[in-house]
Amino acid sequence: MSESVKNSESSIDSTKTKPKILLIGFGGVGTIVSYTLEHLGRAEVVAVARPSNFEQLSNRGYRIESCDYGTIENYIPSHVTLTSEEAMEKYGPFDYIVITTKNIPDIAPVVDMLDDCYDDKTTIVLIQNGINTEIPIYKRYPKACVLSGVTLIGTTLYDTTVKHVATDDIKFGPFINYNIDKQYQINKCKEFFNLYSNSNNKAEYEENVKLTRWRKLVYNTCINTTCAIVNLDVGRVELFGGADSILRPAMKEVMEVAKSEGIELPDDLPDDMIRGTDGVYYPPSMLIDVRNGTYIEHIVIIGNVVKIAKKKNIEVPTLTVLNNLLKLIQYRLMEANGRFVLPERRPTAEDHYEIRFLD
Amino acid sequence: MSESVKNSESSIDSTKTKPKILLIGFGGVGTIVSYTLEHLGRAEVVAVARPSNFEQLSNRGYRIESCDYGTIENYIPSHVTLTSEEAMEKYGPFDYIVITTKNIPDIAPVVDMLDDCYDDKTTIVLIQNGINTEIPIYKRYPKACVLSGVTLIGTTLYDTTVKHVATDDIKFGPFINYNIDKQYQINKCKEFFNLYSNSNNKAEYEENVKLTRWRKLVYNTCINTTCAIVNLDVGRVELFGGADSILRPAMKEVMEVAKSEGIELPDDLPDDMIRGTDGVYYPPSMLIDVRNGTYIEHIVIIGNVVKIAKKKNIEVPTLTVLNNLLKLIQYRLMEANGRFVLPERRPTAEDHYEIRFLD
Repeated sequence: MSESVKNSESSIDSTKTKPKILLIGFGGVGTIVSYTLEHLGRAEVVAVARPSNFEQLSNRGYRIESCDYGTIENYIPSHVTLTSEEAMEKYGPFDYIVITTKNIPDIAPVVDMLDDCYDDKTTIVLIQNGINTEIPIYKRYPKACVLSGVTLIGTTLYDTTVKHVATDDIKFGPFINYNIDKQYQINKCKEFFNLYSNSNNKAEYEENVKLTRWRKLVYNTCINTTCAIVNLDVGRVELFGGADSILRPAMKEVMEVAKSEGIELPDDLPDDMIRGTDGVYYPPSMLIDVRNGTYIEHIVIIGNVVKIAKKKNIEVPTLTVLNNLLKLIQYRLMEANGRFVLPERRPTAEDHYEIRFLD
Repeated sequence: MSESVKNSESSIDSTKTKPKILLIGFGGVGTIVSYTLEHLGRAEVVAVARPSNFEQLSNRGYRIESCDYGTIENYIPSHVTLTSEEAMEKYGPFDYIVITTKNIPDIAPVVDMLDDCYDDKTTIVLIQNGINTEIPIYKRYPKACVLSGVTLIGTTLYDTTVKHVATDDIKFGPFINYNIDKQYQINKCKEFFNLYSNSNNKAEYEENVKLTRWRKLVYNTCINTTCAIVNLDVGRVELFGGADSILRPAMKEVMEVAKSEGIELPDDLPDDMIRGTDGVYYPPSMLIDVRNGTYIEHIVIIGNVVKIAKKKNIEVPTLTVLNNLLKLIQYRLMEANGRFVLPERRPTAEDHYEIRFLD
């Protein structure tokens, strides 16, 4: 099922027009993805920056300290805009729209980001966690070609410096949209892979997207969530007895749901994942989110797994409780971020109170 | 099953010697319990104070602002000692040892508190949450007479002031030790009840201790735990959808375990409990513990329920996950309180590392 495509280090033939790529989500991952695509002259990146980062990114750029690429003093992408609408007007249409934001459908649905910049010849690349993230895009754009990028990368944006500490180990493959030609999607993915792969990163073309995604879910659905709920890193959860009491039972449930999706995962995967960060007390991304008070990706990481299980009558008691707790935690984060304001007195049953979200 | 014993307001006959009571746990609850026992001249209380409170309590006392008793400027119990050993030497043996500490067997087992002050004529009164709290005492003292006090009281010690805001609604009954005469235990309980009950509090004698305790567990096992895990008060858990997704399923499980113990609880109990604090955003005690960084009573509140369920093969999937998460949270609190120090690097599997607790 797996196919590896070798790619030379050379730049794309300079007589051809470079592919134009819109990149949404210029954080730790996004910056490395952008630099990867641009530094060999293979592509031209248009970055959509947040208002708070716009001035810095467009004039002085970010400093990158990368285990893959060394130190780059001032990386500025080819173009920087404030909105995807502006990007489309000035530089569109795009060959690719690469999304490297968090995937938080309850806060900022990815599909909404496409409305101002998507063209029916554009390929969408989701470099994001989770499962079924392509579905909302197919629903709105039934003929969309969407690619999957699953990365194991250690990279964080601190103010204006990106510290990239663990190599970009990324697997690309096409989500398959059955409304359009399969080979077209495969070709588009190989094309993008060729823009991305180089001798410094560990990019791979892996056609079995489901395998790649479910494999990572075993980690994210169980370890990320548990660490976030109890506010402990992976090492501590393990040392305090959580590997046997929660992680393994949860992982078993994920692997069973994966199996129902045709994905057989090896029995030693849980142990590999629990032990994968031996030597350091590793805080997974969802734990960092909770500690920083930023939103969690619980819907695509665990919610969608529970949904599939429910539909198929697979019992996932551990995941169900973790998921329901995370929903409450996301509300806590929303309230703290001012997404809604509760009445001063707790409403009674007779009040039939419903939370009103502010925009 | 329930029996109410009426008690007059009068002091005990002053020609008799007053019962001597050792009180361990001079916090919000302990202070009110002590004042209740002493203010009508019915009993003589010896308080074991923490070193940090000793000077204040023995010389200036605590200020009490009580919804039941009004304001008492300086309440000093009859005697104050630093240890139960000192108390025994100077004032023992005791008619009663009343324990109003938190019940945290993983940190400070209640039975250990008895070793220096228990005499085989002493009756032990546990005014504490949880289930099976009498068992460790029977194990060490097979002929012990242990009484149960279950209180719904709102009282907190702030520095040197006790704010008592919700009336002392307390039910006493004898745990039954089958190694000793049942009637003796009933008599002892009625005797203590007569010392305690007055026209200001809502003390009740309730022989069915199991009913009283399991009823309160429906609240504590489910609401206290969930609020503590997600760091939200009861109102917010309910408004954010947690009543249906977690509280009710958990409560159903507790009620099933209660049933297996011969305790039938009414079907409308969950709703009563979820709605019981309408009008205020009430933070249950375990949530306050987590917010303050103090230890949680998870073993007696939920751990022992899960243990019973396991022994009887009753499925409690929700409680199991909540319990396992709380175990991790207690370790987090222990580390924060300096109970152990982890190695700088996360140990590997080969290290076979085990946590060493400091005393």
